[in-house]
Amino acid sequence: MPSTYKPSKPNHVDFLEATFRRIFPQDTDVRAQAKARLEQLTMPYWALGDLMDLAVDLSGMTRSLRPPVQRKRVVIMVGDHGVTAEGVSKFPSEVTAQMVYNFVNGGAGINALARQARAEVTVVDMGCAIDLSALVTAGKIISKKIGPGTANMALGPAMTRTNAVLAVEAGIEVAEQLASETDIFATGDMGIGNTTASTAIVAAFTGKSIDELTGRGTGLDDAQFEHKKKVLERILQINKPDAKDSLDVLAKVGGYEIAGIAGLIIGAAANRKPVVVDGFISSAGAMIACKLEPFVRDYLICAHRSVEQGHAAMQEKIGCKPLLDLKMRLGEGTGAALAFNVVEAAVAVLTEVATFAEAGVTGTPVS
Amino acid sequence: MPSTYKPSKPNHVDFLEATFRRIFPQDTDVRAQAKARLEQLTMPYWALGDLMDLAVDLSGMTRSLRPPVQRKRVVIMVGDHGVTAEGVSKFPSEVTAQMVYNFVNGGAGINALARQARAEVTVVDMGCAIDLSALVTAGKIISKKIGPGTANMALGPAMTRTNAVLAVEAGIEVAEQLASETDIFATGDMGIGNTTASTAIVAAFTGKSIDELTGRGTGLDDAQFEHKKKVLERILQINKPDAKDSLDVLAKVGGYEIAGIAGLIIGAAANRKPVVVDGFISSAGAMIACKLEPFVRDYLICAHRSVEQGHAAMQEKIGCKPLLDLKMRLGEGTGAALAFNVVEAAVAVLTEVATFAEAGVTGTPVS
Repeated sequence: MPSTYKPSKPNHVDFLEATFRRIFPQDTDVRAQAKARLEQLTMPYWALGDLMDLAVDLSGMTRSLRPPVQRKRVVIMVGDHGVTAEGVSKFPSEVTAQMVYNFVNGGAGINALARQARAEVTVVDMGCAIDLSALVTAGKIISKKIGPGTANMALGPAMTRTNAVLAVEAGIEVAEQLASETDIFATGDMGIGNTTASTAIVAAFTGKSIDELTGRGTGLDDAQFEHKKKVLERILQINKPDAKDSLDVLAKVGGYEIAGIAGLIIGAAANRKPVVVDGFISSAGAMIACKLEPFVRDYLICAHRSVEQGHAAMQEKIGCKPLLDLKMRLGEGTGAALAFNVVEAAVAVLTEVATFAEAGVTGTPVS
Repeated sequence: MPSTYKPSKPNHVDFLEATFRRIFPQDTDVRAQAKARLEQLTMPYWALGDLMDLAVDLSGMTRSLRPPVQRKRVVIMVGDHGVTAEGVSKFPSEVTAQMVYNFVNGGAGINALARQARAEVTVVDMGCAIDLSALVTAGKIISKKIGPGTANMALGPAMTRTNAVLAVEAGIEVAEQLASETDIFATGDMGIGNTTASTAIVAAFTGKSIDELTGRGTGLDDAQFEHKKKVLERILQINKPDAKDSLDVLAKVGGYEIAGIAGLIIGAAANRKPVVVDGFISSAGAMIACKLEPFVRDYLICAHRSVEQGHAAMQEKIGCKPLLDLKMRLGEGTGAALAFNVVEAAVAVLTEVATFAEAGVTGTPVS
């Protein structure tokens, strides 16, 4: 909700507000036209179920009965988390940067799945703790670095409100920059410690208990898991994020990559581009984006249901049913890349299947 | 189970039995090697969930750590059903043949989804009521026609036991014929009235009630739905299919295309080719195939959970968890074609993702 936005600098309100004003709901006329065509296809009524619902959504988002989805792009937002000092993750912080090199070299899960889906991968340094300027200079990644990782949110706010705004803006800028060469976006994340931040965000927005929302992240054992939950309780007690003020939530218990994801989603919506939201971390970014500007919701496609505990609560809050449920919990945009296939299939149904009249098939029920 | 097979002609027992003897369980060594590699990939343990389970299965089926899945093929088995005389379907019988022309012209749902998945479509006339010889002559479809549709199973057996055997053999022949140019098969069906046959099959095998198993097929209203259930009760009473004898079930309450699907699955397994099983009708064929030779189970990939009521009971009986759940109920192989993407993704994970050692990523947990 734009009204909850309290900028620290006047120029920021202008940029964010100006972007929000470019976001409109889906086009109801084009939706109706898509639905009318789908009802006439040579098959029993709505027999391709969710694919047909998705085709209607894509038409409404893109204002087209031939929604363009050929140029697919996964944007991986990268950021480190000071809260890793509390031992909330099984992997050390330096893995964030190591994985960036893995992305650039094409050896990560997202690279394999993006290739399968014929999608591009773009990596954005939003706040990696390690210097990645060599990769930036080489043109391998984009830098929108706000800082070298967030502060430890178990001791105080993860970032300043100013930096939260800057990070969202940076995400919007990435979308603006890539929009002319992208038909459909997907969100991805990399940041050791970011399931802790995302759990704090969903707890702040839903009011549900840490017990109910916390998962094992990259694979904690029982003792580590109990510890993570205690840290999360402390994070909420110390920061008291205000659910009515999404920038407050983002600044206090978020992360730079989560802000970047929120910005990317807002920027995609402003450019009327569908955006496939990956798993738990991406959905935290989507919650922020939807709170800042509710019309954003009309451009979201929820890729999958993650194994991570709090994901269902997030998707319920966003109001978005996931397409896939394959026990995935990797992030990076992997679920979203896989879901690109489903999106492409939905468009194929809308644009390539013949109607009863076109095919000379008897469509009138016999009784 | 081979022992339940009572052939009507000696040469038939030879062909079926000889085929069964070529079907072996998945290779446990290759499975273990695939698992070992997947555990070392640059991601938290088994973080791509079902994709990784599927990759292990594909390795075990194909005896390869680089399971070939590039040449994908959907085989649509076509057959008509005498039971349509009872008014169990919303569409008239002639739609079966009309849809064959639609397939050949590339305008059906399966054509769109197969193109998206970069898969070939092969149509086989197992028992269409209408003469399709022009399409056969033109090389557009394969003919394995057993007869011009089954008899009305509400009055007696759908087909003779001999024809049931011949139809399964024909399906095997199709797989044999296509195996050299196919890495992975998918099953598809076309046949107005075939949800009735498939419901009768699952009722026979599971002993569950018609009420519990019957769905609305292509979209029956309440009165038509009640009527269909009554017809199904009558079908079971009159035929008394013997669940211990799968050829008896197939002959009495099956269909030519369902037999063809069973045969295709058996033939795929004999050639160590994975076979993606589509929805309700295909799963009826898979039940028959698994009953005839239980090792077949090791080559099945269940594509999706259909909206059709009895599908869950079938998949439970087969012991196969579906990959997708998108409220689809079209058949034709559409769910299987969509699932080809998931299969391809699973192979990409196994063959393209770097290990911790290869990528120089810290894989050892910190605590």
